[in-house]
Amino acid sequence: MSVKAYIETNKERFLNELLDLLRIPSVSADPKFKSDVHQAAAFVKESLEKAGVDKAEICSTAGYPIVYGEKIIDPTAPTVLIYGHYDVQPADPYELWDSPPFEPVIKKTDSHPEGAIYARGSADDKGQFYMHVKAFESMLAKNQLACNIKFMIEGEEEVGSENLDLFVKANKEKLQADVVLISDTSMISMDHPSVTVGLRGLAYMQVEVTGPNRDLHSGTYGGAVANPINVLCKLIASLHDEDNKITIPGFYDKVEEYDLAYRTQLNKAPFEEEDYKKKLDIAETSGEKGYSTIERVGIRPTLDVNGIWGGYTAEGAKTVLPSKAYAKVSMRLVPNQDHREIAKLFENHLKAIAPASVKVKVVPHHGGQAAVVPTDSIGYYAAEAAIEEAFGKKAIPTREGGSIPITSLFQQELGLDPILMGFGLDTDAIHSPNEHYGVKNYFMGIETIALFFKHFSSMYGKKQGN
Amino acid sequence: MSVKAYIETNKERFLNELLDLLRIPSVSADPKFKSDVHQAAAFVKESLEKAGVDKAEICSTAGYPIVYGEKIIDPTAPTVLIYGHYDVQPADPYELWDSPPFEPVIKKTDSHPEGAIYARGSADDKGQFYMHVKAFESMLAKNQLACNIKFMIEGEEEVGSENLDLFVKANKEKLQADVVLISDTSMISMDHPSVTVGLRGLAYMQVEVTGPNRDLHSGTYGGAVANPINVLCKLIASLHDEDNKITIPGFYDKVEEYDLAYRTQLNKAPFEEEDYKKKLDIAETSGEKGYSTIERVGIRPTLDVNGIWGGYTAEGAKTVLPSKAYAKVSMRLVPNQDHREIAKLFENHLKAIAPASVKVKVVPHHGGQAAVVPTDSIGYYAAEAAIEEAFGKKAIPTREGGSIPITSLFQQELGLDPILMGFGLDTDAIHSPNEHYGVKNYFMGIETIALFFKHFSSMYGKKQGN
Repeated sequence: MSVKAYIETNKERFLNELLDLLRIPSVSADPKFKSDVHQAAAFVKESLEKAGVDKAEICSTAGYPIVYGEKIIDPTAPTVLIYGHYDVQPADPYELWDSPPFEPVIKKTDSHPEGAIYARGSADDKGQFYMHVKAFESMLAKNQLACNIKFMIEGEEEVGSENLDLFVKANKEKLQADVVLISDTSMISMDHPSVTVGLRGLAYMQVEVTGPNRDLHSGTYGGAVANPINVLCKLIASLHDEDNKITIPGFYDKVEEYDLAYRTQLNKAPFEEEDYKKKLDIAETSGEKGYSTIERVGIRPTLDVNGIWGGYTAEGAKTVLPSKAYAKVSMRLVPNQDHREIAKLFENHLKAIAPASVKVKVVPHHGGQAAVVPTDSIGYYAAEAAIEEAFGKKAIPTREGGSIPITSLFQQELGLDPILMGFGLDTDAIHSPNEHYGVKNYFMGIETIALFFKHFSSMYGKKQGN
Repeated sequence: MSVKAYIETNKERFLNELLDLLRIPSVSADPKFKSDVHQAAAFVKESLEKAGVDKAEICSTAGYPIVYGEKIIDPTAPTVLIYGHYDVQPADPYELWDSPPFEPVIKKTDSHPEGAIYARGSADDKGQFYMHVKAFESMLAKNQLACNIKFMIEGEEEVGSENLDLFVKANKEKLQADVVLISDTSMISMDHPSVTVGLRGLAYMQVEVTGPNRDLHSGTYGGAVANPINVLCKLIASLHDEDNKITIPGFYDKVEEYDLAYRTQLNKAPFEEEDYKKKLDIAETSGEKGYSTIERVGIRPTLDVNGIWGGYTAEGAKTVLPSKAYAKVSMRLVPNQDHREIAKLFENHLKAIAPASVKVKVVPHHGGQAAVVPTDSIGYYAAEAAIEEAFGKKAIPTREGGSIPITSLFQQELGLDPILMGFGLDTDAIHSPNEHYGVKNYFMGIETIALFFKHFSSMYGKKQGN
């Protein structure tokens, strides 16, 4: 029986195991889910053991633990380090979910005619990292594994992976590998499989504007005392100019301008603007002047307010001039922009432009560097070969708008360029209500990852002259 | 025993009755307090009966009831119509209260060395309208009442008094009077008793900005799809120009520009800018260029955001590009600005300036017209005489920034100019956490209102040639 047949035979179990994992609400951002996050870590450890690793361990950190497991088939064989995360984004607003976020159900949709798993974390990233566990199990079971495998599955990706940094630095020896493989990105479509070769960085900030020392009656004081919400709106509005360029001094200093040839190549990726607008129900896309939608999310930095609040937000009307207003603002960064430097520029700028009538406090939440992955490595070639064998089509290299801050960590600390072979779709609604992940994507992913292990071992062996 | 002695003798009871009323959380804006609001109405009816009205009734409306009670001592005697409201503002944010908002406590403060009652509604307006009940009881008990008294105490003032309009129009006969007396405003200070002769109007709007049809991942879509929070901030920011003038076309068309003599007179009211800033802990006041703080809240219209929300507002970070963002925006209006017209101008303007990348919905919440009270009426003279007798000082006429939308209703439907004789202080924190009302203000108010009844009857009699 081939590896493919093994996967086919075990389909139902592979799916049910994932559903069990999805039932654990491992929301790392919200302390009330603390025990659930730990429970998810224990689940992952057990899954690795069952799949056949030599040893698995739950490694404590100052935050949530990192689950590590390895199978060394031969110390001289090449090693694939797999990274993923078992924590998930908060599921609120719950009322916008068609089914409860932690009670997975399988439903058929236009994008997933063979069914999709609806649950928080189904695509990001439980459904995706779990494919690696199952691909590993399948290869091992069929005696086909020709490389060593190391798993490093963390629980703080959605809150900035702060403790992963220390862990990687302290465990360089243990994590030694020849490639890092990550499935936490998306493909263009099942008809256009792709490999992500660029990711944006992130600088996530919280802004607090304080006006008067207490909430005031807007009739008695309105017009004479600065309203922190009005001021916050002014500050935020001023961060983009008429061309939707970001106005923070120095923000673009290190942003690379690509030549026409590169931009033309980038814009050749399959993309239907009309279809994109229709799916989002928007009349127009909107972004930095002079760039296409693909460029705006791929090679240009951005600034978005992720949350804003202040004053009276419940039913009805309250005539209050509030004491405070808040916003969460994140900037997506491109290669060479340092997230710490950008965070500082943001803070300095906001404080410089704030009127004397209010006090402004800026707190950086977390950040990560942008990444560009070379396309001339064995890892990349192996990904291409695996995709071609599984999908019957050549992989398209794409640059994605999201951020996986730890990619630059692997480059710096382990000297490894990560291979970003994700199987999600943009329509999977990750970070949104009704997140889902195609059942077909799940099984195609398992198959493709198994093929990656095969091709990587084989190509690596050839390079070494074995 | 004089009326003053009667008040003195019954002090403790007068205070405890008010505390009982304050224990009822009659928040009209929030449906979860519905039964409490009705309970407050029942309390008011019973209080009027105990104080000695001929009859009291709870008059149903489409919303919360209006409590009506009257004492006709002589059909030929002048009649004072008393207006007040038993509903209160929402108390949230609860965590900013030093003591629970519906468990009144008496504490001493700098502004109230003889103690102040801390509770939601203590100053606005339970503590103030209840003074009328007690002044009426005292005059009646001491056989000094020489005018008829009608009470109309409503339960929807904090949500726009929508049903009062119908009630007044349907009960013109019943409500016939010679003056309307209202205590729902503040004085400059106990050393500077004042009568409010101008109030601003109000147009309260809710704005909803919709971007994509669902929450999106800000990495995947950020920079290419308009973020409704960023757009809302731009819209709000654009509503004021550099001089803090409101940019809505036509907004100032009907605003009266006062001559220098009037403005000089207005600015003579006791006011210490440094003290004002210190009490609010702000470095600078802020408002429309070319006007003083007194003018900004008294004779100029304003626009304040009373609440804003959208995206992720809980702990931690979520990289979401939300589908929707909301704001509650209110404009304070001056005489001649029609609140319905201004609401329409606001809506039209927002829709005109919104980019095609989003949808904007504007819903008017409620509104009311501004009012100016003449100072040459018997009612005003009676208020002056009552204040002078009680405080030993001449009353200062002031224009206040708040709104009591129903004043224009009384002018139009009953032909009565209201006398706005309030006893609160600006520091009472109405509509804020830790609202309070001075114990001394409460008793001085009762005494002054009783004197108003006396002087009004006497002056009215003289005018009639009795």
